[in-house]
Amino acid sequence: MITSYNSSLLDKAVAELSKLPGIGEKTALRLALYLLRKEPEMSEALGSSIIEMRRHIHYCPECHNISDEGTCSICSDRRRDRSTVCVVENVKDVITIEATREHHGLYHVLGGVISPLDGIAPSDIEIESLVERVGKGEIKEVILALSPTLEGDTTNFYIYRRLAEMPVEVTMLARGLSIGNELEYTDELTLGRSIMNRMPFKDTFHE
Amino acid sequence: MITSYNSSLLDKAVAELSKLPGIGEKTALRLALYLLRKEPEMSEALGSSIIEMRRHIHYCPECHNISDEGTCSICSDRRRDRSTVCVVENVKDVITIEATREHHGLYHVLGGVISPLDGIAPSDIEIESLVERVGKGEIKEVILALSPTLEGDTTNFYIYRRLAEMPVEVTMLARGLSIGNELEYTDELTLGRSIMNRMPFKDTFHE
Repeated sequence: MITSYNSSLLDKAVAELSKLPGIGEKTALRLALYLLRKEPEMSEALGSSIIEMRRHIHYCPECHNISDEGTCSICSDRRRDRSTVCVVENVKDVITIEATREHHGLYHVLGGVISPLDGIAPSDIEIESLVERVGKGEIKEVILALSPTLEGDTTNFYIYRRLAEMPVEVTMLARGLSIGNELEYTDELTLGRSIMNRMPFKDTFHE
Repeated sequence: MITSYNSSLLDKAVAELSKLPGIGEKTALRLALYLLRKEPEMSEALGSSIIEMRRHIHYCPECHNISDEGTCSICSDRRRDRSTVCVVENVKDVITIEATREHHGLYHVLGGVISPLDGIAPSDIEIESLVERVGKGEIKEVILALSPTLEGDTTNFYIYRRLAEMPVEVTMLARGLSIGNELEYTDELTLGRSIMNRMPFKDTFHE
């Protein structure tokens, strides 16, 4: 329950701010009072940037990464290697991998990983569109760059099986990553090295 | 410097969010991507509540507390003891003291404390309006409830001197508060007790 702060306008702002992950009511109140102390332009810019972002953001029809409009800047960058596609869980992972400067190809953002416990089936994420992209024949290597968790591994294996009959090499990030950790918290050096040392997916299990 | 995230809309939202105190660029990105994953109504409500709050908030002409419009709900509450006024630094301190339920009078929000180092002089905060309120004769007791810091003590002493010739008792919170701490981080029990045990301001120093 949200305390009342003598102003329904403040109450509302605190209630909305506390809905954000990691922001409790005390922090929300501190942020709201900070905005009240600062010039009005700061609150206008913050509020409208949030609304504009959510209203007008687009997703790239090729790789499903975020984009201002149409095809994203990575997919339309002619200097990038179009024969290598790195498969990631979400938009944040694209940013994390770009920061390593070790991947020069394109991306494919799944928008999640297969997770029966959370009710996420293969058809709920962008796997079918990946198979279609590979089917066009231009892609020579698919790098699986999902978090080394149970769900990530399940998704890796599912994609590997879907691509098994196609003339494409399926690799995965070297397991320099600590098992059980989320990708976004891995340091750039370790992550960059694991892109360089990526290995054939079929070497990682015994049939 | 803010990294670019492949969308100027996202870049802008992350830049604005990172201006908030305690929110770095990584946290700002996490919040922005969270909003993108959630339904658009959440971002609309958050953005507009911030803008509306900053545009339309009012301050009570009596006590300078925040208020939706005109006199605040505390000043206009006829059940409150109008002869006792608690002097606090800011709006958050009103909320903190209200939570103890030990103060049944009114408030006076200074909007800061005297701090020569930060260039805040007595005329920059609401001291003159306090003297005027006391001058009307209805107030019998002024409770000084500033943080027990150098600036708080300086302000306490300044107010005490300004009210010295007036027929009003000046008290201050009992020094159960740990010296050097900020008022808002004091637990409610200690704070409530220190309101009950408030003491005459002139007993705390040797002339």
